[in-house]
Amino acid sequence: MKNILIIGCGLIGSSLLRAIVDKKIAKKIFICEKSKSNILKIKKLKLPCVITNDFKKIIPNLDLIIFCTPLGEYEKIILKINKYLSSKTIITDVGSSKEKSMELIEKKLKKGIFWTSSHPIAGSEVSGPEHGIKNLFLNKWCILIKQKNTNTKHLGRLSRFWKKIGSKVAIMNSKKHDSIFSMTSHLPHLIAYNLVKTATDFEKQQGYDLIKFSAGGLRDFSRIAASNEIMWRDILFNNQKNISKVIDLFVKNLFSFKKDIQSKNNNSIIKKLADTKKVRKKIIKLKQDIDKPDFGRS
Amino acid sequence: MKNILIIGCGLIGSSLLRAIVDKKIAKKIFICEKSKSNILKIKKLKLPCVITNDFKKIIPNLDLIIFCTPLGEYEKIILKINKYLSSKTIITDVGSSKEKSMELIEKKLKKGIFWTSSHPIAGSEVSGPEHGIKNLFLNKWCILIKQKNTNTKHLGRLSRFWKKIGSKVAIMNSKKHDSIFSMTSHLPHLIAYNLVKTATDFEKQQGYDLIKFSAGGLRDFSRIAASNEIMWRDILFNNQKNISKVIDLFVKNLFSFKKDIQSKNNNSIIKKLADTKKVRKKIIKLKQDIDKPDFGRS
Repeated sequence: MKNILIIGCGLIGSSLLRAIVDKKIAKKIFICEKSKSNILKIKKLKLPCVITNDFKKIIPNLDLIIFCTPLGEYEKIILKINKYLSSKTIITDVGSSKEKSMELIEKKLKKGIFWTSSHPIAGSEVSGPEHGIKNLFLNKWCILIKQKNTNTKHLGRLSRFWKKIGSKVAIMNSKKHDSIFSMTSHLPHLIAYNLVKTATDFEKQQGYDLIKFSAGGLRDFSRIAASNEIMWRDILFNNQKNISKVIDLFVKNLFSFKKDIQSKNNNSIIKKLADTKKVRKKIIKLKQDIDKPDFGRS
Repeated sequence: MKNILIIGCGLIGSSLLRAIVDKKIAKKIFICEKSKSNILKIKKLKLPCVITNDFKKIIPNLDLIIFCTPLGEYEKIILKINKYLSSKTIITDVGSSKEKSMELIEKKLKKGIFWTSSHPIAGSEVSGPEHGIKNLFLNKWCILIKQKNTNTKHLGRLSRFWKKIGSKVAIMNSKKHDSIFSMTSHLPHLIAYNLVKTATDFEKQQGYDLIKFSAGGLRDFSRIAASNEIMWRDILFNNQKNISKVIDLFVKNLFSFKKDIQSKNNNSIIKKLADTKKVRKKIIKLKQDIDKPDFGRS
């Protein structure tokens, strides 16, 4: 590829920038970033890119545009760039929720223009371009969305792009994507946020300090619950139906645990507590996590 | 101290054994372990200790007995050792739940014998003596339980013991202990188990593979949900009342999140999602977790 534009240069955008540079995938990388403090950070990092919002000048020559902003920003940006777009440019995003955002994109995007959506399964609790790392996507899954109206040429080229970055590519439709990630990502984040909120509420209620004893389990959740709030608001709002469904399933199971505890149902609780260990083993076997106890942190 | 007996030599027992050896706290360490495979492992590790169950011979000369078995084993062992105990020996345990277990201990323990309960806030998802590490308790909190009938001399000596091991000591009664740890440890573990169970149920329901995409958040929970099931059954059964209370508070908050998501209540959800970030900062400031993004694992 010759020219790539990354819109939004936070953790994900700047990690992509570094990976594209590292793998020598493009000749020129343009960055569009609205936050002045982020722009200063990018300049200070001396990352090889051109910071610009001169869409008129650059868009006609782009091979690839990557949206790396929160989902809630898409509409405004599409309306700004629409008139400069042509069908030869591959347009993608890295959003974590797809059905609703694809509906909006199709409604707002100029006729005849293609959008091929991506979701790299990578991230961190820290935000901002200074935290980007070139290997963030290495050996991680990247989901590409294939719908009826997907441009298969674009899909093929985008797939090769992510493989060059170092990712493993899986292709599915937006409906399946949103169902899977409501369970493997969106619910876990919501649960982590909710647990930390519950601990804070409980601390106030009881009137004694308990956060200082969080090493018994709570601290793990606090890491996930430190993720970017704008990004997560948008994901939760966009994937509302699937998330509501898995919340209900989660609460049903939690009350079943509560019943086992209250009635001291030995067989039932041992089965539940032992089965989950197999899942951990599977996750490690699938190289979705490291196998060192305690994440090797201590 | 001259002689210490550790009853139960799994992860915690063997870590204590290594720490006592490392800090040269005792002249002789006796180990009582009922699992034959654990005994073989301890012998293979060549840890300097005497493996025995000759209580009659060793107990009269002990300075300290430490119960490192699951809570459900205490009664059986107390009934076995009762007749050999004297009031000069400090007896402690490392259980994670205190009110119910202290009630049982007081009922079963021979009159005139003191029990001073400990709870080191340390552990791992792996079990067994081969996973023990001498620094498991270093800079971690150890809670000592003080009740009306606590022998304050024993409490003082036990406190010095844990400080020598490298722990920070906090003293509180069993009621406060069980309330705090229902929130900072027991609920987080239950939630992790429940999330992994819900993901497994959902995978079966939907008929497609989703565990392979667990890097988006689920994998963190799977680590905690791989903890020892016997130990956790006993903790959950023992601290039933407090755990039921925090489950209800957790579900109430989760439904409030669901309402925000369904009604797209921007202000309410942003406040919730942003507030939790402060807790993470506090946890890191209190040195309850490392400050590297993603636990430094990637």
